[in-house]
Amino acid sequence: MAWCEYQTTAYIVEKLSPLSFKLFLGKDVSDSDARMGLPTQEEDQWHVDRARKNGVPHELLEKMKGNHTGLVAQLDTGKPGKHMAFRFDIDALPIHETQEVEHAPVKNQFASRHNGQMHACGHDGHTSIGLGVAHLLHDLKDELTGTYTLIFQPAEEGVRGAKSIVQKGWLDHADLFLAGHIMHQPEGTIVPGISSSLATSKYNVVFSGVSSHAGASPETGQNALFAAATAATQLYGIARHSGGATRINVGKLIAGNGRNIIADTAYMEIETRGETNELNEYVSSKAEKILKAAADMHDVQVSTELVGKGISAQSDDIWNEIVQSSVSDSTYVTHVSPAFEKIGGSEDATYMMERVQAKGGLATYLLYGSTLSAAHHNPAFDYGEGVLAIAVDSLIHIVLNQQI
Amino acid sequence: MAWCEYQTTAYIVEKLSPLSFKLFLGKDVSDSDARMGLPTQEEDQWHVDRARKNGVPHELLEKMKGNHTGLVAQLDTGKPGKHMAFRFDIDALPIHETQEVEHAPVKNQFASRHNGQMHACGHDGHTSIGLGVAHLLHDLKDELTGTYTLIFQPAEEGVRGAKSIVQKGWLDHADLFLAGHIMHQPEGTIVPGISSSLATSKYNVVFSGVSSHAGASPETGQNALFAAATAATQLYGIARHSGGATRINVGKLIAGNGRNIIADTAYMEIETRGETNELNEYVSSKAEKILKAAADMHDVQVSTELVGKGISAQSDDIWNEIVQSSVSDSTYVTHVSPAFEKIGGSEDATYMMERVQAKGGLATYLLYGSTLSAAHHNPAFDYGEGVLAIAVDSLIHIVLNQQI
Amino acid sequence: MAWCEYQTTAYIVEKLSPLSFKLFLGKDVSDSDARMGLPTQEEDQWHVDRARKNGVPHELLEKMKGNHTGLVAQLDTGKPGKHMAFRFDIDALPIHETQEVEHAPVKNQFASRHNGQMHACGHDGHTSIGLGVAHLLHDLKDELTGTYTLIFQPAEEGVRGAKSIVQKGWLDHADLFLAGHIMHQPEGTIVPGISSSLATSKYNVVFSGVSSHAGASPETGQNALFAAATAATQLYGIARHSGGATRINVGKLIAGNGRNIIADTAYMEIETRGETNELNEYVSSKAEKILKAAADMHDVQVSTELVGKGISAQSDDIWNEIVQSSVSDSTYVTHVSPAFEKIGGSEDATYMMERVQAKGGLATYLLYGSTLSAAHHNPAFDYGEGVLAIAVDSLIHIVLNQQI
Amino acid sequence: MAWCEYQTTAYIVEKLSPLSFKLFLGKDVSDSDARMGLPTQEEDQWHVDRARKNGVPHELLEKMKGNHTGLVAQLDTGKPGKHMAFRFDIDALPIHETQEVEHAPVKNQFASRHNGQMHACGHDGHTSIGLGVAHLLHDLKDELTGTYTLIFQPAEEGVRGAKSIVQKGWLDHADLFLAGHIMHQPEGTIVPGISSSLATSKYNVVFSGVSSHAGASPETGQNALFAAATAATQLYGIARHSGGATRINVGKLIAGNGRNIIADTAYMEIETRGETNELNEYVSSKAEKILKAAADMHDVQVSTELVGKGISAQSDDIWNEIVQSSVSDSTYVTHVSPAFEKIGGSEDATYMMERVQAKGGLATYLLYGSTLSAAHHNPAFDYGEGVLAIAVDSLIHIVLNQQI
Repeated sequence: MAWCEYQTTAYIVEKLSPLSFKLFLGKDVSDSDARMGLPTQEEDQWHVDRARKNGVPHELLEKMKGNHTGLVAQLDTGKPGKHMAFRFDIDALPIHETQEVEHAPVKNQFASRHNGQMHACGHDGHTSIGLGVAHLLHDLKDELTGTYTLIFQPAEEGVRGAKSIVQKGWLDHADLFLAGHIMHQPEGTIVPGISSSLATSKYNVVFSGVSSHAGASPETGQNALFAAATAATQLYGIARHSGGATRINVGKLIAGNGRNIIADTAYMEIETRGETNELNEYVSSKAEKILKAAADMHDVQVSTELVGKGISAQSDDIWNEIVQSSVSDSTYVTHVSPAFEKIGGSEDATYMMERVQAKGGLATYLLYGSTLSAAHHNPAFDYGEGVLAIAVDSLIHIVLNQQI
Repeated sequence: MAWCEYQTTAYIVEKLSPLSFKLFLGKDVSDSDARMGLPTQEEDQWHVDRARKNGVPHELLEKMKGNHTGLVAQLDTGKPGKHMAFRFDIDALPIHETQEVEHAPVKNQFASRHNGQMHACGHDGHTSIGLGVAHLLHDLKDELTGTYTLIFQPAEEGVRGAKSIVQKGWLDHADLFLAGHIMHQPEGTIVPGISSSLATSKYNVVFSGVSSHAGASPETGQNALFAAATAATQLYGIARHSGGATRINVGKLIAGNGRNIIADTAYMEIETRGETNELNEYVSSKAEKILKAAADMHDVQVSTELVGKGISAQSDDIWNEIVQSSVSDSTYVTHVSPAFEKIGGSEDATYMMERVQAKGGLATYLLYGSTLSAAHHNPAFDYGEGVLAIAVDSLIHIVLNQQI
Repeated sequence: MAWCEYQTTAYIVEKLSPLSFKLFLGKDVSDSDARMGLPTQEEDQWHVDRARKNGVPHELLEKMKGNHTGLVAQLDTGKPGKHMAFRFDIDALPIHETQEVEHAPVKNQFASRHNGQMHACGHDGHTSIGLGVAHLLHDLKDELTGTYTLIFQPAEEGVRGAKSIVQKGWLDHADLFLAGHIMHQPEGTIVPGISSSLATSKYNVVFSGVSSHAGASPETGQNALFAAATAATQLYGIARHSGGATRINVGKLIAGNGRNIIADTAYMEIETRGETNELNEYVSSKAEKILKAAADMHDVQVSTELVGKGISAQSDDIWNEIVQSSVSDSTYVTHVSPAFEKIGGSEDATYMMERVQAKGGLATYLLYGSTLSAAHHNPAFDYGEGVLAIAVDSLIHIVLNQQI
Repeated sequence: MAWCEYQTTAYIVEKLSPLSFKLFLGKDVSDSDARMGLPTQEEDQWHVDRARKNGVPHELLEKMKGNHTGLVAQLDTGKPGKHMAFRFDIDALPIHETQEVEHAPVKNQFASRHNGQMHACGHDGHTSIGLGVAHLLHDLKDELTGTYTLIFQPAEEGVRGAKSIVQKGWLDHADLFLAGHIMHQPEGTIVPGISSSLATSKYNVVFSGVSSHAGASPETGQNALFAAATAATQLYGIARHSGGATRINVGKLIAGNGRNIIADTAYMEIETRGETNELNEYVSSKAEKILKAAADMHDVQVSTELVGKGISAQSDDIWNEIVQSSVSDSTYVTHVSPAFEKIGGSEDATYMMERVQAKGGLATYLLYGSTLSAAHHNPAFDYGEGVLAIAVDSLIHIVLNQQI
C-alpha cells in the first residue's frame, strides 16, 4: 500500500547492504510535505505492526517512521563520467489476488502473502530489475565511470510519490534518466521513448453537512449526499477541449448513514486527465469549481485534497536513439519497437523526467515486453519472469554504452 | 437487528412460559413471504451463532430458523367477551450506543451489551410493557372475560414486520386493538388516538453496469455511479402534491470500486412517505419510474427491492374516547393529551389497525410520555423507567373497562 | 398588462369624476420604487401610444407617465365614523381570448378588444364592482359616517402592485379593510374570511455567459444554457418543509442562439410559494442560493430580479363574523359559506391586510360566487354578470352595518 | 434559408440559361425524402411569396414547389474524357448582418437585402465561383473532353442538403470530384486535400407533457421543461471516447408558457460530432438514449427529428497531388498549403466525396484563402472579392490538366 512499503524497503536494504552502494533512507529520500495521498494513522500503524511482526528491525522502522518508505542507492565510481539515474517503483495495490488454480502464482505458490495486497501492476518485477541492475553495477564498478543513482520509489500507484523525491533534489544532477514498465508485448520486445502518458490529478473529496430526520424535519438537513450526487453528474459534463483528449471520472462515492436520515457526509474519489499538463489543468480547475459550487448549492462544506498528481512528459529523441541502438546490442532483446502514440494511463516518473530535462539532462521511458495473463490491476495479472533478465540486460547495455 | 431477534424472543418465551398464555412461535407468527427486508444469510448466521453461544436452546433456535422471530401470546378466559389485541415491538437498531459517562445506561451499567446494536427507539421498553401487561392479565385472569392476544412483533424498524403478522391472520378476529410508543412528553402523560403517522415505502436499489479504465477506455464503461447520482438528484425533484405532505429521501449511496475505474455498481437506500397511502403511492410510483429511467439513461441495469412498507391509519374516535376515559382512571396518569395533529415518522402497526377495522373492530394508537435524554435513533437516547409502570397501568385500566 | 393600465385607469377616472370622490392619480397612488415587475420601456411606449390613439387625454397620460397607473378614490363624509378601505384590482392578462363562437363574450361581442390581452381572471368584474360601490356610496353619502377609500390597484397579476400602494401609506389609517375575488361557486354564494392564499415570490433570472463554436472550441464557452438547466433541475429538489406546504416552479426557460453555439444567455421565470411567509422565505432563500451556485458552477453571471411578491395573511375572525352576518342581510345573497381551508393561488391584497392589522385595524377577504365557463387564466374564462350586483350589494350591506 | 433558395436558384438559372449547359431543376435535383431539416409550410410560403413579388417567374416557382431548390448544370462535350463534378453551395444564414458603417458591405451598399438573412459563410462567393467556372467551361467547350457536372447545392448549413442530391444519383458517374470553401488564409493561398471535417448529427427535439397550475396542483403536471433540463445536463455528460474527439451541444432550449404553469412543452436544438462517423454514431446513439430516458423520467413524450447529418470523409492523396500541382500553375495562386490537420466544423460535401469514392472515383476538398473581416457566421463576416477570381482560375487549371 502507498507509503506503507516498510517490508519491501527493508527487503531492498537487505539485498543492497552487501554491495558498494551508499543507501539513503527515511527523510533523506523524499520531501515530507510533497508526498501526496498519505494513509490514515490507523492504516499506517497496521502496516508498521505487521512489518515489526515479520522481522523488520526496530531501527530501520524508526528511520522510516511516518511513511518515509522507499530508498535511494548511489554508486560513485570516483571517476569522471555521466551521472545516470534510474527509477524503479516498488508499491503494491489493494487488490485480492485471484485464488484460481490455473493462475501461475497460485499453482507455483508465490501468490500474494498479504491478503488484499497484490503486485497487480508488476512493481515487484520492477524492484527485481532494480536489484539486478544494482548487482551488475556493483560487479562492473571498476570498469565504470561516473555516478549511478537507483531510486526505489514508493507510492507510484495513484501518482503520489515521485514528486516528493524530485523535490528532495535527487534528479537535479542527473545527466541521463531511465524509467520503465512491464507491458503486454511479446517477450524480448523493448519499446523506448514513451512520451504520451496522460497528465492527471487525483482528489479525495469530502462533503460535510448536517443530518436530520427525513420524515420529521427534512428542511433542517444540509444534504451532503445530494451535493455529491450533483457534483458527480456535473463533473462528467465538463466541456471537451479542442486542444486534445481529456478525462474525468468519479470512481467512488460513499454517502449517508441510513435510509431515513438526511446525509451529513459524502466522500468521493475523483480524477482528471489530459493529453498535456495544460489540458489536465483545464479539467481539474473546472472540477474544483464544480465541487465548490455543488457544496454552496446544498449549503454544505467541501474539502478537496489532492492525493496524487502526474504530469505529461516527452522523452528526448536523441537519448531515445542511443537507447534504441544500445538495447539492440543485447542478445536478450529480439525486437526494438518504435514508441506507441497513445497510452491511456498515467505515471509519475514524468516528474523526474521533467526535472532532469529542466536541469539540462536527457530522459526517456521504456516498456519491457511480456505476455501478461491478464490486464494490469486485474486480480489475475501475472507476467513471465523472462522479462526480468531482458530488462536488466537492456539497462546494463545502455550503461556500458555511456562509458567514457 | 430486524428478523434476528433470536435472543429477545427467547427471553420473552422464558418470561411468559410460567404464565397461562398459549405461545405461538416461528412460522406460526408471520407469513414467510410477506416479511420485508430480510437480512443476508451471512448476517443471519452471525446472529444465530451469537444466540446459541449466549444460551438460546437448540429447539427454540430450530423453531425460529430462517428469521422467524417474534411471538404471539394468547390468553383465552373461556368466558364470552371482547377479543383484545396488543402490539409490542421488540427490535433494536444498528446504532453504537454512546460511551459518554453521563449517559445513564453507561453510568448505571445497563447500556447495550451487543456492540453496534442499541435499543435507540425504546422497543426494550415496549417489550417490558408487554411483559408487564402479560403478568397482570395472568394474575387477573379469573376476573376477566374474552380473549387477549399479545403480539411481540419483530422488525418494526424499517416497517418490515407487521404486514406479515397481519397476513397470518392474527388480527382477523380482534374486536379492539391497541399499540403504543414511548414519546418525548412529560412523564405521566398519555396521548391516545394518534392517526397521523406517515405512509411509507422503503427500497434498496442496486444499479449494475460495466467497469472500464477511466483513462484508456471511458466509452466502454456503463457507469452505475453516474446512474445512481442522476437518480438521487432527480428523486428529490418529484413534484410536491397539493393533497398533503410527501417525503423522499436517499439516505445512503455507495458506488464504485476505485478512482480510475468507471463504476460498475451502485447501491442506494431510499424511502418515500406520504400523509396518506395515496400520497405515498404517488411518490413511490414516481420514484420507481425515475430509478428505471436513470438506469436506461446510463445503459445499466437496476433492481429495486421493497424492504419495508408502512401505511397511514386512522384511530377510531369512539374507541379513543373510551381509552381516554379509561386511562384517566389510572392514578399513574397525570395528564391525558388530545392527539397531535402531525407526526413526521412512520409505523407499521398501521397494518394491524387497518385489518382490525376492515373486519369490523376498533383500533387506536397511544403515546406514553417520558422525558427523553436525546431524540429517537440518537446514540444518546434514553427514557425514564417510570414510563413502564404508567403504560402498563394504563393498558390494564383499558382492559378492565372492557369487561362484561 | 401590469403597469400599463392607462386606458382602464382613464375609464375609471371618467366614471368617477362626476361623483363626490377625491381622486388621486399617478405618483400619488404608489411608491415608485416599491413597484415590482415593471415592463420594458418599449412595451410601455406601445401601450402609451395605444392609449393616446384611443383617446386618453394628454394631461392624464402625463400624470400616469412612467407606469404610474391605477387610482385611489376617497370619500370623506365629514362625519365621525369608521374609515373603510376597499381594494379592486383592474389589470388584464397577456392571454389570447378564445375565438370559439360558443364562448359567450364572442357570441355577444364583448370579447377582448386588444388582441393578446384578456380579462381572464375577472378583474374587469372587480373594476365594475368598485364602480358600483362608488356610485352607491355617492348616492348614500348623506346617510353615511366616516371615510371611504376605494383603491383601484394595477398589477395584481404577478403580485407586483399592492406593496407599492401600501408603502405610499394608503392603508395606514383604515379601520376596516375588504378585498375580494370572483370564484367558481354557485351564483349567490359569498365566502368571507379567506386566509390561506400562499405567500409567493416571483423572479426573472438571467444567466450571462460567453458563446463559442461548439465544434471548434467548446472549452472557451461559458455555457449559460447548461447553468440554467442545472438550476432548473436543482430548484425542484429543494427539500420539503415539515412546517407546511411549499411550492417551486420554473415556468419558462429560454436559452441559446443556435444549435452549434455554446449558449451565452439563458432566461428563466420562476416562482416560490409557501403556506406562510416563513415557508416562502425558506424556499426563496434556497432558490437564490441555487441560482448563484449554478452560475458559479458554469462560470457564468446570474442576475435575479424579484418581479413580484405576495405574502400570506389571516382574515380577522371578529370582522369575518360581522361580514357574514351583514351579507346575509342582502336579498341577492343566497348562501354564505364558511371559509375554505386551502387556496392554491396567491394574492397581494395580503400586503394591505397585513398593514391594516399592523396599524390596529381589521381585514378580511371575500369570494363572490359565479359559475365560470372555464378556469381562471384560461382563454375561455368567463363569468356570469349576475355576480356583479351580488357583490356590490354585499359590500354596501357591510358598509351600512358599520354606521354609527 | 435552407430549402427556400428560390430567388438564388432563379438567379443562377438566369445566368446559366444563355450557356451550353443542360439545366436540371426541382425534383430532378434531389431525392425528396432524403432532404433533411425542411422548413415549416408557413416559412416556406413566406419565401415563395417574396420570390414571386421579386419577379421569380411562375413556372419556375412551380417547378421548385415544395422546397425543391438548387440546380444541377451539365455540360457534355461529346468527346470521350473524364466526368468531373463540382459542388457549389448557395444558401444563406438566418443572421442579421451588422449595420456598422465600417463593415464593407454596408459602406459599399451590397449588404444583405433581406433583413435577417445573410451570406455569413460566404456561399454567395461559392455561387459566384460556380458561375465563373460555368462561363469559362462554356467558352472553352470546344477544347474540352468529357463531361462537367456543376451542382449548385441548397441547404448546406445544418448539413441538410447534400445527401438528397447523392441519393438522386448525381455523383454515381463522376470520375473526379471537387468542393471548396472560402477560409481565413492569406489571399492567394489554396489548401487542397482537407479530410478532417467532423461527422455530425443535428436534432430538433420536442418534449410534450401536461400543464397544470404550479400552486394548486403541481402533481398533475407532466413537466416538459424539467425533462428537457434533465436531458441537457445529462447530454453534456456523455463519456469521452478513447478513439478520438467527440462533441455534444445543446444550443437552444425553449420551454414553458408562464411562471406559474408546469410547462407542457419544451424544444431543444442539439448536435453531436465525432472525428469519424463511428465516433459521431457513438455520441448520437448515447444522446438518443438520454433523450428517451429523460422523457420517461418525467412522464412526458419526446419526438426527436434528425434535421441534418454530415459524415467525415478522406480526400484522395493521388488526386490531391494532381490538384496541388495544377493550381500551382495558376498565376493567381501565390501559395499552395499542405492540408490542415484539424477542422472543428462539419460539411456535407462529404456525402458526395464518399459516393464518388464508393463508385471508384477520386475526390478532394479545397480551401480558398481570403482575409476575413470576422469569423464565419458572425454578423460582421466579409471576405475580399479577390478570392473569387483566384478560385475560378484554380479550378479551371485543374480542369485543363485533366484533358486527354
